[in-house]
Amino acid sequence: MAVFRANGLVTLTTDFGWREPFVGIMKGVMLARSPHLRFVDMAHEVSAFQPVEAGFWMSRALRYFPAGTLHVAVVDPGVGTPRDLVIALANEQALLAPDNGLLAPLAVRGRVDALVRINPARLVQYGVTDISATFHGRDVFAPLAAELAAGRCQPADLGDEVTALNTEGWPPVTARVDGGISGVIVAIDRFGNLISNVEAAAVMALSDPIVHIAGMRLPLRRTYGEVEKGEYLGLINSFEVLEVARARGSAAQGLSVAIGAPISVVPGGLAAQFRRS
Amino acid sequence: MAVFRANGLVTLTTDFGWREPFVGIMKGVMLARSPHLRFVDMAHEVSAFQPVEAGFWMSRALRYFPAGTLHVAVVDPGVGTPRDLVIALANEQALLAPDNGLLAPLAVRGRVDALVRINPARLVQYGVTDISATFHGRDVFAPLAAELAAGRCQPADLGDEVTALNTEGWPPVTARVDGGISGVIVAIDRFGNLISNVEAAAVMALSDPIVHIAGMRLPLRRTYGEVEKGEYLGLINSFEVLEVARARGSAAQGLSVAIGAPISVVPGGLAAQFRRS
Amino acid sequence: MAVFRANGLVTLTTDFGWREPFVGIMKGVMLARSPHLRFVDMAHEVSAFQPVEAGFWMSRALRYFPAGTLHVAVVDPGVGTPRDLVIALANEQALLAPDNGLLAPLAVRGRVDALVRINPARLVQYGVTDISATFHGRDVFAPLAAELAAGRCQPADLGDEVTALNTEGWPPVTARVDGGISGVIVAIDRFGNLISNVEAAAVMALSDPIVHIAGMRLPLRRTYGEVEKGEYLGLINSFEVLEVARARGSAAQGLSVAIGAPISVVPGGLAAQFRRS
Repeated sequence: MAVFRANGLVTLTTDFGWREPFVGIMKGVMLARSPHLRFVDMAHEVSAFQPVEAGFWMSRALRYFPAGTLHVAVVDPGVGTPRDLVIALANEQALLAPDNGLLAPLAVRGRVDALVRINPARLVQYGVTDISATFHGRDVFAPLAAELAAGRCQPADLGDEVTALNTEGWPPVTARVDGGISGVIVAIDRFGNLISNVEAAAVMALSDPIVHIAGMRLPLRRTYGEVEKGEYLGLINSFEVLEVARARGSAAQGLSVAIGAPISVVPGGLAAQFRRS
Repeated sequence: MAVFRANGLVTLTTDFGWREPFVGIMKGVMLARSPHLRFVDMAHEVSAFQPVEAGFWMSRALRYFPAGTLHVAVVDPGVGTPRDLVIALANEQALLAPDNGLLAPLAVRGRVDALVRINPARLVQYGVTDISATFHGRDVFAPLAAELAAGRCQPADLGDEVTALNTEGWPPVTARVDGGISGVIVAIDRFGNLISNVEAAAVMALSDPIVHIAGMRLPLRRTYGEVEKGEYLGLINSFEVLEVARARGSAAQGLSVAIGAPISVVPGGLAAQFRRS
Repeated sequence: MAVFRANGLVTLTTDFGWREPFVGIMKGVMLARSPHLRFVDMAHEVSAFQPVEAGFWMSRALRYFPAGTLHVAVVDPGVGTPRDLVIALANEQALLAPDNGLLAPLAVRGRVDALVRINPARLVQYGVTDISATFHGRDVFAPLAAELAAGRCQPADLGDEVTALNTEGWPPVTARVDGGISGVIVAIDRFGNLISNVEAAAVMALSDPIVHIAGMRLPLRRTYGEVEKGEYLGLINSFEVLEVARARGSAAQGLSVAIGAPISVVPGGLAAQFRRS
């Protein structure tokens, strides 16, 4: 299988926030093993217990990092119960995460080059022996990340290569009889923008696309500034998925839309006018 | 024009928060170009769409950083619409920001040594070519910051020196007929302290100054601990502006005061007593 | 007294949040003095004005960091009024904090190896001279931390060794007549888990322990996943204290319990059944 050539950079994605030193402690564990590691904090206020939201952002962030980066994601409501840890290789980088759906958004796009299911029996040889029931970020993820990012072990040292991954929680996109596409809101960002799982390419294949969400029909625009303050718009966002926004406001609040809500995009224009009449 | 001697340190000020990996992705882009850069996170929960609040803090933070630091600020509600990016040189450091009023608090104090308006036509020679409509932090600011902070380009390489800056949104301070000064609350900190644009020097020129805000008259104290828990006070804060605080509480909540609210400071003492009678 | 062998790593624990650049400015001050320092952010959203909460987490985090780490904690409602700063040596690491109860959780466990009370008269020789009334994090803690972490000064250079520490605010654990233990909720984490000051060893000494909190009697479990979604449980958490949690929910919200609330753990089992009848 592909070799992971670590560059010493570790990114962290968690739902730990900044009120407790959980992220800091993970870094302490890593630095105690590998003092020269460097860290990038990705997201620490991912919605609690929403691995798929974390996975969506990771799948979109990967391409902006240098080869050899190790990404660690700990959004893990099943901590302490039987669930595997996995390492995915993608884009010359590695991702360490629980197998709880977090890596589904990456996998369904076909971006995973290799996948290793971590064998708990291999942990002891890396000194990962004192494992609490509730903080595997500190007791398992951090020590393994330190070994991987320092180049002292390879994914293949930690378990067997597998092909299947847990994809629960990641909603499908479906084709509509009118030629449109139906998807789901998979993330809401700090500005209240509603981010869907509908890929840009699918939207662009439609003539004069119209976005349907929460009973509204919205045109597709290029950027937030193209409509008046307070108005809603659909757009292909900078991560290449369909998004619904409100100019200088929160679409999530204004439309009372939450993660999981349906969204559709349908062909518009004259043809559509005739169909409706 | 003055040369920027980069020290490899980049600070980031945004309204991106920690729920999505927007800040992390900016760092990824920079590290992919310049692996040895170091980062300091300044503020990532600046009020959304309030460039001036970000700019106020940057203008006050600058003096505490070593020469050669590059400060990047992305509070940019106009992203994707025509608005320039600028680089300001000040205090042997450089600031990269949108020209949307963010640099006004620095400029109005006369602290900008040189100013460059970035010419979009120059971006291509630095490989800044794949620019989305909605995430210039990642697509423009980060790559330019990496080049500047690594010493591979100078501000003057990116555009022409200019003298004018957008100062919209930054409120003026005015003299009152009673010899006092009227200003505005420009920021509210996490503790609910109300921070004004009235400079310490102007307050100190008054004899026995009394602060007027939200219908209250407050004495000027040296520190929070000088009044009882729950009481209000005016003080010259550690950034050398007039602030209104509540001991071990939130002045913003207690007084129902928001950003933009008026504040005045007037001469008090015996003379004032006579004037009032 | 014990020597502090600095490794160049500084951790920061504050109640400053990410809305203002207070943490960033502290790092700027340190880097201006010692450009090679590295930082780990521990917690920046500690409950405002709650030194003991910060101290609880620090006392539990220490063991995960490498020898030579300097931990700086600035949760300091008394800033600008007379209160000492102290340096504690513990676990081959150093902690710099105000003497306001913050170090009590560490001290009461007997983990402090040596304690220095900083003598303000010594500050001038380290260039700590321009001290505001309200931001000692920037004006005192940061410069001293830079000197200590760079190995340019020892705790003993800054003041005299002392033995007594302020332990106000740290609640005691008491024995009950039924053989159980009564303690207090000392922290609530982001997930709403209720964290007590009752040590694991004391709980484990009881046969079939039952947790009493907010009128409920809860069994002791190993991890969150062992009960159904929405149910409450007691557990020994990964920091070796008694915790009350709600599976995939917030115990703090569900039970309306705040910091300071009482919690007890009593022996259960058959014997207890007989006693109750």
